[in-house]
Amino acid sequence: MGKIITIGREFGSGGREVGKKLAEELSFAYYDKELVEKLATETGLDSNYIERQSEQYSATAFPYVVGRTFLSLNTITSQMSTSLHVAQNKLLKEIAQKENAVIIGRCADYILRDFDVLKVFVHASDSDYKIKRYAEREEDKEKTVKEIEKEIRRVDKHRASYYQQISGQKWADMSNYNLCIDTSKVGVDGAVAIILAAVNL
Amino acid sequence: MGKIITIGREFGSGGREVGKKLAEELSFAYYDKELVEKLATETGLDSNYIERQSEQYSATAFPYVVGRTFLSLNTITSQMSTSLHVAQNKLLKEIAQKENAVIIGRCADYILRDFDVLKVFVHASDSDYKIKRYAEREEDKEKTVKEIEKEIRRVDKHRASYYQQISGQKWADMSNYNLCIDTSKVGVDGAVAIILAAVNL
Repeated sequence: MGKIITIGREFGSGGREVGKKLAEELSFAYYDKELVEKLATETGLDSNYIERQSEQYSATAFPYVVGRTFLSLNTITSQMSTSLHVAQNKLLKEIAQKENAVIIGRCADYILRDFDVLKVFVHASDSDYKIKRYAEREEDKEKTVKEIEKEIRRVDKHRASYYQQISGQKWADMSNYNLCIDTSKVGVDGAVAIILAAVNL
Repeated sequence: MGKIITIGREFGSGGREVGKKLAEELSFAYYDKELVEKLATETGLDSNYIERQSEQYSATAFPYVVGRTFLSLNTITSQMSTSLHVAQNKLLKEIAQKENAVIIGRCADYILRDFDVLKVFVHASDSDYKIKRYAEREEDKEKTVKEIEKEIRRVDKHRASYYQQISGQKWADMSNYNLCIDTSKVGVDGAVAIILAAVNL
């Protein structure tokens, strides 16, 4: 059985970058969008379809007509993607059985609860930090701060909803994680160093 | 201005022990009950009175007749102890001005929000860990597991109420802390090592 580190994260906090660097430092496999490709191969489903179903799916692109409330979004998502989640759960467990890996999002902390997992959550208490990180991305140079804030809230709302739907638990609640790190205080490299200290205990 | 590490903690999680060991490792001052004595000297108030007013005060000993609800407990506490909190805030800021210190509880993360503080919260996701720690304390050998669970819930409820009252924010909400550590996963010494990694960034 492999060593697994799951990383939940607020949008814009740098959790993905933390995970990527951590995987490099530890020579662990890294799964984020890589899971989508693996799932596409295994299920025969289109990778775009899978991405839309996954918690990675940007909430900006979610059709508003589907429903204006949190609840209806939940219900419709769950009707659409049950079989896909079954396949994803199976894949996550196979990974945990055979290799050391860093896994981003996907409610992996809950799905792999029977494995020996270090459950990390990366957030940023200073929202300016998230806005700055977001604004630095080339493709979003046109967005106003207000639009970025709205986008961050929307993606996090989608992640919270996804997490709640799969686990029945509250997203970003410290009691679900072993280590919660504020990148706006310690930075991405700092978060990596802190997680390494926990891994090397 | 000193380096300050504040440690909020769930009852039974070992947060106090983490803080004590951390202060020793770093050769920082350590303030827990030490604050009570300092306050007694400065205010001329009785240290027992101060302890009853502080968030350290065990909720078991709180007179039920004061009020059966959370709200009335809050109200009465705040009426009784405003001047004491003013003195405590002043003392905490004096400490932060002049020395490196580890400070346990007392909403110090909020009170010292304008200082450069590493805000830590220590919790234990496995409640058995907290029960075991509690049961190991000599004086509590007679208590049943059910009684211990009740006591843990009661003390944490009191701490949450105190924190909410002083800061207007939710206790044990990760967004208020830079680092949240689950001692039931990493142990007390592990938590110390993780915080040291954050301090030494």
